[in-house]
Amino acid sequence: MKTADERKTLVQVNFGKLPPDLVIQGGTLVNVNTREIQRADIIIKGQRIAAVEFGETSWTGKCPVIDATGQYLAPGFIDPHIHIESSAITVTEFARTVVPRGITTIAEDPHEIANVLGLEGIKLFIKEAKGVPLNFLLRVPGRIPANAHNIETSGGEITLKQTIDILDWEEAVCLAGDINPNLILSMDPQQFAKIAYTIKMKKTISGQSPCLTGAALNAYIAAGVEDSHVSKDTEEILDIARHGMRPLITHRSMLFGVSDYTKLVKAINDKNLDTRLMSFTTDDVAPNVLYKQGHLDERVRLAIAAGLNPVTAYQLATCNTAEHLRIRRDFGELSPGKFADILILDNLESVKVDKVISHGKLVAEKGKLVSDPIPFIYPQRAMHTMKTKSRPRPVDFQIKVGKTRKWVKARVINPGERDREIFASLPVQGGVVHPDAKKNIASVTVLERHNASGDMANGFVTGYGINSGAVASSVNHDAHNIIALGLSFEDMAMAVDRLVSNGGGYVTVKDGKILAEIKLPIAGLISDLPLKTVAEEFEVFEHILKDKLGWNPHGHPTDDLTFLCLPNIHRITITDKGVFDTSTMKPVNVIIK
Amino acid sequence: MKTADERKTLVQVNFGKLPPDLVIQGGTLVNVNTREIQRADIIIKGQRIAAVEFGETSWTGKCPVIDATGQYLAPGFIDPHIHIESSAITVTEFARTVVPRGITTIAEDPHEIANVLGLEGIKLFIKEAKGVPLNFLLRVPGRIPANAHNIETSGGEITLKQTIDILDWEEAVCLAGDINPNLILSMDPQQFAKIAYTIKMKKTISGQSPCLTGAALNAYIAAGVEDSHVSKDTEEILDIARHGMRPLITHRSMLFGVSDYTKLVKAINDKNLDTRLMSFTTDDVAPNVLYKQGHLDERVRLAIAAGLNPVTAYQLATCNTAEHLRIRRDFGELSPGKFADILILDNLESVKVDKVISHGKLVAEKGKLVSDPIPFIYPQRAMHTMKTKSRPRPVDFQIKVGKTRKWVKARVINPGERDREIFASLPVQGGVVHPDAKKNIASVTVLERHNASGDMANGFVTGYGINSGAVASSVNHDAHNIIALGLSFEDMAMAVDRLVSNGGGYVTVKDGKILAEIKLPIAGLISDLPLKTVAEEFEVFEHILKDKLGWNPHGHPTDDLTFLCLPNIHRITITDKGVFDTSTMKPVNVIIK
Repeated sequence: MKTADERKTLVQVNFGKLPPDLVIQGGTLVNVNTREIQRADIIIKGQRIAAVEFGETSWTGKCPVIDATGQYLAPGFIDPHIHIESSAITVTEFARTVVPRGITTIAEDPHEIANVLGLEGIKLFIKEAKGVPLNFLLRVPGRIPANAHNIETSGGEITLKQTIDILDWEEAVCLAGDINPNLILSMDPQQFAKIAYTIKMKKTISGQSPCLTGAALNAYIAAGVEDSHVSKDTEEILDIARHGMRPLITHRSMLFGVSDYTKLVKAINDKNLDTRLMSFTTDDVAPNVLYKQGHLDERVRLAIAAGLNPVTAYQLATCNTAEHLRIRRDFGELSPGKFADILILDNLESVKVDKVISHGKLVAEKGKLVSDPIPFIYPQRAMHTMKTKSRPRPVDFQIKVGKTRKWVKARVINPGERDREIFASLPVQGGVVHPDAKKNIASVTVLERHNASGDMANGFVTGYGINSGAVASSVNHDAHNIIALGLSFEDMAMAVDRLVSNGGGYVTVKDGKILAEIKLPIAGLISDLPLKTVAEEFEVFEHILKDKLGWNPHGHPTDDLTFLCLPNIHRITITDKGVFDTSTMKPVNVIIK
Repeated sequence: MKTADERKTLVQVNFGKLPPDLVIQGGTLVNVNTREIQRADIIIKGQRIAAVEFGETSWTGKCPVIDATGQYLAPGFIDPHIHIESSAITVTEFARTVVPRGITTIAEDPHEIANVLGLEGIKLFIKEAKGVPLNFLLRVPGRIPANAHNIETSGGEITLKQTIDILDWEEAVCLAGDINPNLILSMDPQQFAKIAYTIKMKKTISGQSPCLTGAALNAYIAAGVEDSHVSKDTEEILDIARHGMRPLITHRSMLFGVSDYTKLVKAINDKNLDTRLMSFTTDDVAPNVLYKQGHLDERVRLAIAAGLNPVTAYQLATCNTAEHLRIRRDFGELSPGKFADILILDNLESVKVDKVISHGKLVAEKGKLVSDPIPFIYPQRAMHTMKTKSRPRPVDFQIKVGKTRKWVKARVINPGERDREIFASLPVQGGVVHPDAKKNIASVTVLERHNASGDMANGFVTGYGINSGAVASSVNHDAHNIIALGLSFEDMAMAVDRLVSNGGGYVTVKDGKILAEIKLPIAGLISDLPLKTVAEEFEVFEHILKDKLGWNPHGHPTDDLTFLCLPNIHRITITDKGVFDTSTMKPVNVIIK
């Protein structure tokens, strides 16, 4: 319906000239506009709220009514920064999981699938999302590939012109900022062109400022970037908020942790800080974590448990985010004229969601969607992305030196500590440099899988605790080439071989036996199975990694594998083209002498 | 400078590759982002803030420096709803007055001048504003003329197509809402077309919801209107905020009063309400009030005096308004990348402004602009707008009935009480119906002055206390035809005659003598003299009105004359076409029997 006509129907409902389509009666409204909790009825016409009537129920007309007596009414949650791919499930399965938990709108950055499938990956997600009751907004990937072709091979590429085209799409809500902040700080012309165009389009510029302070933080914000989702602690959250940048708050391994909610809330309460610039987000949530703990609802719950005013906590998941994404005309509050995206909750503090209304329709109840989405079939091209030149042999994973040498000094990637590498002596046998479990040093290999070029690079890594066998994955941020990590070249080769024949996912091998595997056939990133199954597969896989291989990194087991190569995070990284120093983007030697 | 290039210079300043243009050092920042007060330096490049450095001064480079030790730094104030014409001074004189008080940005609705001069009036204001250090944003008049041609004659007309064109202008920030809410509630197609276009343009829809509650308020907000500036009390302010509409708070006669700040602040503090949807505004400020009390700064001062947290009060004049007008990317906070619109204050609570920086330049200091604006010359067409058909005669102001009658029952406009008229017996002499000072009933006439049509209408009005003589004005909302009010037809004719030959303004006459007059030659609305002079003229004029004629309406003396005809406010009104019931927009009889 055209804007003017739709608005007119809302007026007509108020004057009794048209019947409402739905009335929610008897509930108690979480009013994010004024930070109050009040009795109110909500009158709905089509996809929007026609009226909010405060006080005791006055509705007497005939139309479908939901009785919310004893329950709370809150705006649907909005997640401003999300990668569905990280949950390893389809958009359909994701909606089935998060909508009943109260997440009615997401801003998805399809960065992972686009690195594999390019523009087609983004279009597939949008197409799939049309079949589910989730408002799917698009974060326009800011830089695909993440690195230049001479540094890394990726499957997809989004040109500057395409980026600008995508920013015009109706779904596009922001320029996504999962990019290396150095691109801004070094004044990459393409990034500034994208920022200028986003400003012209009146859309939001999303970013990340990991540990930036002082001049670097000021420069980054002055460039136009408006949010960051990677703050490590309360101090960083407050620092960026004071500078006018919006902190998107989420807990994760090695950064802001679950216990940090208490510190943050204490700082807010002690100083009566204005929290309007703060929002909750999730970014990457592993499938087993999603299944066990929940999604954005978990952030709200944790903040309230830590002592945050419940209405304030709901603001961080609703109106604050709507303001940030410049969509508050339609989203983020329960007011006349807004989309009727409404949660009916049994309990405010524990975020116990009973029913979910999306755009005026009851879409979820008691933890389930009310109607089953039609399965979305991914095309063949998306299901066959593991393209390698030849079957891997153990010798391909080896670094060779002079046959007479017994030891070499090697540069070892140390992802546990940001900005670090270590140097270690490693044993040489028959000219082959070996990893050393006693020193907690494993071999690591990245192998190109998009163009079957045969490109691959070998190196060493520390901090994983692995003492035998190997693990391989086709999930490997951001280019998602194959990563293999292990103590045995034979097991690494076998794991990669199986991974390719599985069409992607995870494989772990020990002593020539496959111990566990997860198949992710969609782009080598996503399962076609239900979340419950995928979560169980991850639980089993992670358990076996720890139990049988000694796997023991600092954070989430699979995340610590798949984020190892991310040049945004680590100063020393490995790609299919070699080992690089990300501060200079120059290759560095693995063998020092 | 292009967006990308400008942003790059800000990055370069932070990395010491370019020098700043100005550093404000040693001050204490009013941080509207987090509601804190903190030591900070501000580094400026061009028109924007390059950096905000919290903590003790660290700046050591060479560049112009302002020492703000012992002073406060706050964002420049933004007024979201203003009619400069109501202060009867030019844009230049207005900027000279308000910029030193800290108002750096205004959203002006040139509704009055456009009702006289049409599109040309709007363009003249924009052209004049380019010569003064005030960010002039445009509220696009939503309905000029205010009424259909058969109800009222106006000088200017802005078509639907023109309105849509103007909404595209760079200065245009919102669709202005000084329109009769009934146009929305009765679903006028043009208003809905304008709303739909404004939504498409991602601009703000401004409105007014005088005393609307329940279904009418819900309908009005659901139609898309986002603010109201005419709330009468705290209850109405909170009611509209709870419904998601933004209250623009200002005190004025007969509505929200100065003492109401205390009630509002008590409600906010008692319930710890979120005030983010609230803003201060001024709307219409008479020149003598402006001169004596100030402008938006006065609203901030009153709210703080009433007990509002000072930073919260500053938020209501800065970031809240920037959010409302969708300009927070550039305005409303002191953060990197924003325009350097900065107040340096000696005292936070009393809003004692020492210096004003606008777009990076020092523009005002110690109550004065630092450089005198070049006078703007209005074209001849704007200076000759008092076009009448013939010289007025006393007989033109009379209502006649049968010569034998002694009394008639007449319908009398009663603007003191909203929605009211009274019926009274009036004496007839020689067939002429006379006003009656003892009953506090005066004659009122509206006379067309744009097209010299000779159209005029006579009626009666109560509540002004006038006991003799007459007053006439060319300021008369919204069409600004001549209004004359008096006890003597001879004095009314003389006042109008003088008003026309003066080129517009105000004239008061008693017993054939001119007692006082104010010349407003620009569009018959605006003086070409300094505020101080104009304020003194208004003081004298109002004093004489009260002292010599017994003038004693409820509110501000001249406002109560010039708003008498506003159909938005009063149910019974008079135009050059007759006396009308504004609820039906049908003419009504003055003489009942």
